[in-house]
Amino acid sequence: MVEIYGQEVPQTLEGWYLLHDVYAVNWSRWRAEEPATREEIANQTARWLTSAAGYEKGDSAAYSVLTQKGDLMFLHYRESPDELNYLELSLRQTRLYEFLIPSFSFLSVIEINMYELATLARMKLADQDIIPGSVEYDSAFETEMAKQKSRVQSRLFGDIPEQRYICFYPMNKRRGVKLNWYTLSVAERHDIMRSQGRIIRKYQEQVAEVVSGAIGLDAWEYAVSLYSDDVLTIKRMLYELHFDPAIAVYTNFGPTYVGIRYQPGQLTDLLVGKLK
Amino acid sequence: MVEIYGQEVPQTLEGWYLLHDVYAVNWSRWRAEEPATREEIANQTARWLTSAAGYEKGDSAAYSVLTQKGDLMFLHYRESPDELNYLELSLRQTRLYEFLIPSFSFLSVIEINMYELATLARMKLADQDIIPGSVEYDSAFETEMAKQKSRVQSRLFGDIPEQRYICFYPMNKRRGVKLNWYTLSVAERHDIMRSQGRIIRKYQEQVAEVVSGAIGLDAWEYAVSLYSDDVLTIKRMLYELHFDPAIAVYTNFGPTYVGIRYQPGQLTDLLVGKLK
Amino acid sequence: MVEIYGQEVPQTLEGWYLLHDVYAVNWSRWRAEEPATREEIANQTARWLTSAAGYEKGDSAAYSVLTQKGDLMFLHYRESPDELNYLELSLRQTRLYEFLIPSFSFLSVIEINMYELATLARMKLADQDIIPGSVEYDSAFETEMAKQKSRVQSRLFGDIPEQRYICFYPMNKRRGVKLNWYTLSVAERHDIMRSQGRIIRKYQEQVAEVVSGAIGLDAWEYAVSLYSDDVLTIKRMLYELHFDPAIAVYTNFGPTYVGIRYQPGQLTDLLVGKLK
Amino acid sequence: MVEIYGQEVPQTLEGWYLLHDVYAVNWSRWRAEEPATREEIANQTARWLTSAAGYEKGDSAAYSVLTQKGDLMFLHYRESPDELNYLELSLRQTRLYEFLIPSFSFLSVIEINMYELATLARMKLADQDIIPGSVEYDSAFETEMAKQKSRVQSRLFGDIPEQRYICFYPMNKRRGVKLNWYTLSVAERHDIMRSQGRIIRKYQEQVAEVVSGAIGLDAWEYAVSLYSDDVLTIKRMLYELHFDPAIAVYTNFGPTYVGIRYQPGQLTDLLVGKLK
Amino acid sequence: MVEIYGQEVPQTLEGWYLLHDVYAVNWSRWRAEEPATREEIANQTARWLTSAAGYEKGDSAAYSVLTQKGDLMFLHYRESPDELNYLELSLRQTRLYEFLIPSFSFLSVIEINMYELATLARMKLADQDIIPGSVEYDSAFETEMAKQKSRVQSRLFGDIPEQRYICFYPMNKRRGVKLNWYTLSVAERHDIMRSQGRIIRKYQEQVAEVVSGAIGLDAWEYAVSLYSDDVLTIKRMLYELHFDPAIAVYTNFGPTYVGIRYQPGQLTDLLVGKLK
Repeated sequence: MVEIYGQEVPQTLEGWYLLHDVYAVNWSRWRAEEPATREEIANQTARWLTSAAGYEKGDSAAYSVLTQKGDLMFLHYRESPDELNYLELSLRQTRLYEFLIPSFSFLSVIEINMYELATLARMKLADQDIIPGSVEYDSAFETEMAKQKSRVQSRLFGDIPEQRYICFYPMNKRRGVKLNWYTLSVAERHDIMRSQGRIIRKYQEQVAEVVSGAIGLDAWEYAVSLYSDDVLTIKRMLYELHFDPAIAVYTNFGPTYVGIRYQPGQLTDLLVGKLK
Repeated sequence: MVEIYGQEVPQTLEGWYLLHDVYAVNWSRWRAEEPATREEIANQTARWLTSAAGYEKGDSAAYSVLTQKGDLMFLHYRESPDELNYLELSLRQTRLYEFLIPSFSFLSVIEINMYELATLARMKLADQDIIPGSVEYDSAFETEMAKQKSRVQSRLFGDIPEQRYICFYPMNKRRGVKLNWYTLSVAERHDIMRSQGRIIRKYQEQVAEVVSGAIGLDAWEYAVSLYSDDVLTIKRMLYELHFDPAIAVYTNFGPTYVGIRYQPGQLTDLLVGKLK
Repeated sequence: MVEIYGQEVPQTLEGWYLLHDVYAVNWSRWRAEEPATREEIANQTARWLTSAAGYEKGDSAAYSVLTQKGDLMFLHYRESPDELNYLELSLRQTRLYEFLIPSFSFLSVIEINMYELATLARMKLADQDIIPGSVEYDSAFETEMAKQKSRVQSRLFGDIPEQRYICFYPMNKRRGVKLNWYTLSVAERHDIMRSQGRIIRKYQEQVAEVVSGAIGLDAWEYAVSLYSDDVLTIKRMLYELHFDPAIAVYTNFGPTYVGIRYQPGQLTDLLVGKLK
Repeated sequence: MVEIYGQEVPQTLEGWYLLHDVYAVNWSRWRAEEPATREEIANQTARWLTSAAGYEKGDSAAYSVLTQKGDLMFLHYRESPDELNYLELSLRQTRLYEFLIPSFSFLSVIEINMYELATLARMKLADQDIIPGSVEYDSAFETEMAKQKSRVQSRLFGDIPEQRYICFYPMNKRRGVKLNWYTLSVAERHDIMRSQGRIIRKYQEQVAEVVSGAIGLDAWEYAVSLYSDDVLTIKRMLYELHFDPAIAVYTNFGPTYVGIRYQPGQLTDLLVGKLK
Repeated sequence: MVEIYGQEVPQTLEGWYLLHDVYAVNWSRWRAEEPATREEIANQTARWLTSAAGYEKGDSAAYSVLTQKGDLMFLHYRESPDELNYLELSLRQTRLYEFLIPSFSFLSVIEINMYELATLARMKLADQDIIPGSVEYDSAFETEMAKQKSRVQSRLFGDIPEQRYICFYPMNKRRGVKLNWYTLSVAERHDIMRSQGRIIRKYQEQVAEVVSGAIGLDAWEYAVSLYSDDVLTIKRMLYELHFDPAIAVYTNFGPTYVGIRYQPGQLTDLLVGKLK
């Protein structure tokens, strides 16, 4: 719990745990198998993915990754690290795993910053002429926060957006000598995030953004997944964001992965070479 | 859309998507095959490349890469990430792929900065004595921009330049504390790019330059491909550019790949050892 | 020995030597073995781990590691580098080792900073109206320090905390031009550590922290292991710490490993695929 | 062409293209061959090297590399990238290549800075009382420059120095915020290089230095090869250079490779284990 | 030769060349051999090491390396790079080499800074009332320097210290914009080194330090080997040194390797699994 303008609130709300799991295919080994065997193995993988995607508490999807950075990306949303660990272990028991080469993975948890919600709540109270600091105000704030939290449940615990393309990258906030995100005041950080928010909202019809936190979980502090039916729109949105101070000054990017979504059935086609 | 001197224009025009795809050959495994088999496989690859190069919407080419950074580079121009993904997957189905070791790849999209076009358009209007800000001006500007856009279509959607050598490198704009490309004003960026443009134009008869953007697509922000029949000219042009502020101060370079173009038929010669 | 406020004390107290030892499993090779053979090998490993965990002077445990950074992490507490070396060599003699791929390891030694103890001792003396600098004071200080040292024996020489999750990362103190931990005065460092200590104490019921030093032992200066039954609590604690000056300004993090504890018997289940 | 004190001159003179090509030997695979086969393969390699070294336009040599960074370094001087590419491909067709593991390579081209020559030319004219800026001066300068260029032909197009040891490293000029080689004036760069030149000349009897440029060719801007019959002299010269501003302030070093020259015949001895 | 307070002296005295040579063991391949074969191979290696250690001009030793950074470290002291190259090549001819995986190596040469000796010489002359600058002084200085040089011969050309543990790390002196070791004056460097020397001398009974230079030889400028019968003492000494300006401000550390010394006979035990 931290203090924000007089109220103590938890810093972030967390939703599903996320595992981005990228593999290259050992194609020569794979192609050395008989076509019937390959079809059988591909079907087994498709069943594994269908079952994972159908799991009640969470979601799963597969992408064909562009460039040599990988061939397949599995993406899982689950309610605990244990569930994700179970998915990792069950994939390793499939026959396909013999032909997969681990390439990249990232563990994170969907998060929504409480500042964002608290600001929205406070804006609503400002319309209602309640005196800040009064008992009435505190009670109204609590009620409003509960509404806000309820409103964001679908962002915290939703399914994987269904758009055709994913663009995924981990990132850190800068911790330099003169420019250090973590030594800015709450107000300064809030201002910087607001400017970034305007650009993201401009594109929100075309690009779904999922931000997840990874402090204490993996090698970068955050991960961003962008989902869209148009890769150029993702590129243009990120291009604009590069000139926004939150990105231009305070963000260091990790590697970027671009994938095309495959339904479980298409996964079989992909692996057995029935292209297009 | 961003504002430039009063007009709202899209920031960049995009053309073909590009895939630079570098592989090493597993020569000992390759040479363990019978000569007839190798010839057959090389011919299959040549047919694959011929077909890819003949595709209506885009182009494809192959290069012999110098140094241990790779042996073969395939280069594809296509209208969508899906087409490039299809090429990746179809290469993986060739028999040659069994002998290839992924070494480097880069996904980007040809882009032309709208500032460049808007400046040219405005220069032309300046010659015509139309008052900036007038309705007449806006209409004339729009007409002129349409002409400019039409003029650059061949740069956005052209074939791969046919010169013998390619020099390819990805790059980032600097995002340092004191020197940050992304916090400069539009005018400052414009000035810096103009100086760089002068050097590039000086060499344009001997060196064809293709700039592509990769924000949201790959691990660097931009990629540059230089095509020439004389490697020394590329070196001298880049040497001069190193002393230009846009490069000296605001550019961080990725790895450089130099290749010699091979026609599909020569590819067979190369792989079966009929050298020179 | 260094001087602290007039007393010469050793800089740190050291406890067990620690080896964090992460491996990936070569699953395709492992699954090529007959089920009976796998069970036999897994049981042999479980016996090796049970025996290591039961060793009188120290402790041993195993974790299932999340993400592709590894599959299994063995963690050993021992009284000498020789004992850890013996464990390394004895693991290499097990049949399981044929299926393990070394992924990450870290050698360190549990340490408690003497400043911390000296401060506590001095605070107690302050309550007793003894004049600092007097012979009486020095003698009382020595007595109090002996008590403090005795009190921390269980932290220096305890068992591995039994919580379900481990979060492990190595780290360095910053040695920059303007911000250099190692050129701060003792008092400055003390102040910075105190602020960090407040956050750690806030979470101490839910998160057990073990700090170990690695100067002269491995590639980072320190290692931190956090043990908890709730991963989100670890994430929230580290999130808060990121805004504390000791972390925000003076700490560079290495890679983070998250694991789920497995008892020796469960290890067999894990390796032979009896999931959940 | 750039302007220097009123004269337009090309920036650099280029000579042979250089390929430094380092390989590790897969010794266990190599030793699994019959002695007679190994002798045969080693002899084939020796013939390949003899032929490459005897090529009229350029030179070739082999070195035994110290440390695990490699076992063998081939060094080629040739007149075009195509000739170097041919050598790469022909080595890949030798039977030895089956036992080689690519470890490091570097493509560059010998270069001599024109400032150096122009300065020498101008110094000579200063002795002749011709008025700078006069038509006479310009003509005399041109004559003197032609002499200088002719004089350095053997440095640009010479054979590989025959000394027993080679020390090779790539390097970049610093492009920092405050210290940026590429934003210095010509005069400043000239001054800095002159100081460095004094040290190099002091050692020139014992150490032959070949500087080559790699902008647009490989991952570093320059490469330096030092040849000497005494490794300690190379070390002492570089130690002294480390305190010279051109090195201390403006140079970032890449990895260093030290090799011992082997004649083609000795190469066979080396590979078949007839040591010393 | 450089000038120091009026005398020209060589900058450093050099002794044995050093090769630190770290390997991992391919244990699964090793354990696939028959016990008798393993014993035979281990004995061959032990004989190779015994012979190398018994070589008149130099010394050789083996260590069991902690952590996954390696299993075995061979350390050789020899009078020339050629002798070290011979040792590398002869190890590659042993049957054990088939089971070794190169992990790390470092080439350097033991060095003693002449400033250190000149200072000691001058201190002695100061006791003798000879007027600095006089002919008498110069002659006495020369005599005293000869004594000093003779005194350090055993440090330059000694055997490998016999202590149980080795701690090895390469390092660079900082070459930053504001803090650059190589642009400090001789006097400033001297002062900084003196402070560091005090700490090293404090531990000299328990820790033997061998400093070697690697400029022009390998990827770092220096290497430090610390030998002790107590690893904690090494850690404490390095901890103290981290707060000394020469280290805190002017030193960048490479990877640290900790090893336990094995006699040639123990090497056999180690490899055939007769543990403890």
